[in-house]
Amino acid sequence: MNDDPGLFEIMHSLRAMRRLKPDPVPPAMIDRILDAAIRAPSGQNTQPWAFLVVTDADGKRFFGERYRYWLYERFGEQITRDDPHSALGRSINAARHLADHMHEAPVLLMVMGKRDWPFAVPAAERQGKAPPSYGSVYPCVQNILLAARGLGLGASLTTMHQMFEDELHAHFGIPSDYGVVAVIPIGYPQGRFGPVSREPAASKTHYEHWGRQRRD
Amino acid sequence: MNDDPGLFEIMHSLRAMRRLKPDPVPPAMIDRILDAAIRAPSGQNTQPWAFLVVTDADGKRFFGERYRYWLYERFGEQITRDDPHSALGRSINAARHLADHMHEAPVLLMVMGKRDWPFAVPAAERQGKAPPSYGSVYPCVQNILLAARGLGLGASLTTMHQMFEDELHAHFGIPSDYGVVAVIPIGYPQGRFGPVSREPAASKTHYEHWGRQRRD
Repeated sequence: MNDDPGLFEIMHSLRAMRRLKPDPVPPAMIDRILDAAIRAPSGQNTQPWAFLVVTDADGKRFFGERYRYWLYERFGEQITRDDPHSALGRSINAARHLADHMHEAPVLLMVMGKRDWPFAVPAAERQGKAPPSYGSVYPCVQNILLAARGLGLGASLTTMHQMFEDELHAHFGIPSDYGVVAVIPIGYPQGRFGPVSREPAASKTHYEHWGRQRRD
Repeated sequence: MNDDPGLFEIMHSLRAMRRLKPDPVPPAMIDRILDAAIRAPSGQNTQPWAFLVVTDADGKRFFGERYRYWLYERFGEQITRDDPHSALGRSINAARHLADHMHEAPVLLMVMGKRDWPFAVPAAERQGKAPPSYGSVYPCVQNILLAARGLGLGASLTTMHQMFEDELHAHFGIPSDYGVVAVIPIGYPQGRFGPVSREPAASKTHYEHWGRQRRD
């Protein structure tokens, strides 16, 4: 495939990009992202995902107002308390920036999952608000983040909508048999992609039995 | 990066590979897979994952026996009933093959997640068996599947261990504050990678409001 960016390079430089430019995202890019999203695995290949692409001002404002309210409601104390130059402080500042500017993101991509879980329970007996099978939707979400990064778009994974999910259902007409799993603001990034630093895998990996090193 | 396979090509050809060759997988490949895995996003960057790499015969037999028992227990009726040539029948045959040969997979990679969720609840008050935050572990799981595919290795995502997770904890010494999220058998594939077919994204995508098409 031409112009196909390197898989490992993309995985290693997939930072959450919370500062986005207002420039619109071409619909063809959204199509390409979603066409990658649906290649993800899902339990028994049920493909329980659905997508809502929000680009109009009303919908973004509706979401952004509630997102911002809940960010400050939940993390307001941390926001004022933390050293803005510490790693946590920088992360909180970026989260606050995202919340303050959520409505300006060119695209808000909502990823839904069908409440089809557990399979063994007949649909009629399942609790109305049972969560979707996250294990059958989050691989698709990760494909979305990777595909966006692969196209040079910034994105970040947010789940704060859980605090006001009923309002989303009502406003956007989302059927009750779907749960909203994640909301992903997408746009051209203000900053640059770069390597993501993490705790090394070796510090979290065990061999044959928990607590054992690899025998070399 | 040299020898970096194309991101979109890999996402589009990531089939579940349930028929694996017995040839060992070089440890350096596992290292590279896990180094990609940990680049995934997680809620508040908590990186709650941990990995258990099982390659010895005892551990694989222990897991394989239980996996096979539960596969037949849960899907035995379907296994005998479905047309082996239908899409579902072929999928069930592949699942049965995987179960019958699980202990022969060169590597069983268990992915654990810390039971740190919900954050708002103090650890001491959380239910002992609360699931980990799947949203903070499945993106890492998808990176593992993609990285394996990128290196030419076959893998598949299994969650049947949920039927006997307590036994896994006891046998492999997994601490109770970690839950096992997925078990991924990895090896060189017997078959070929190829395009994965799915319901088209367009059939699952809504614009601005559930049920609306894109305005072009």
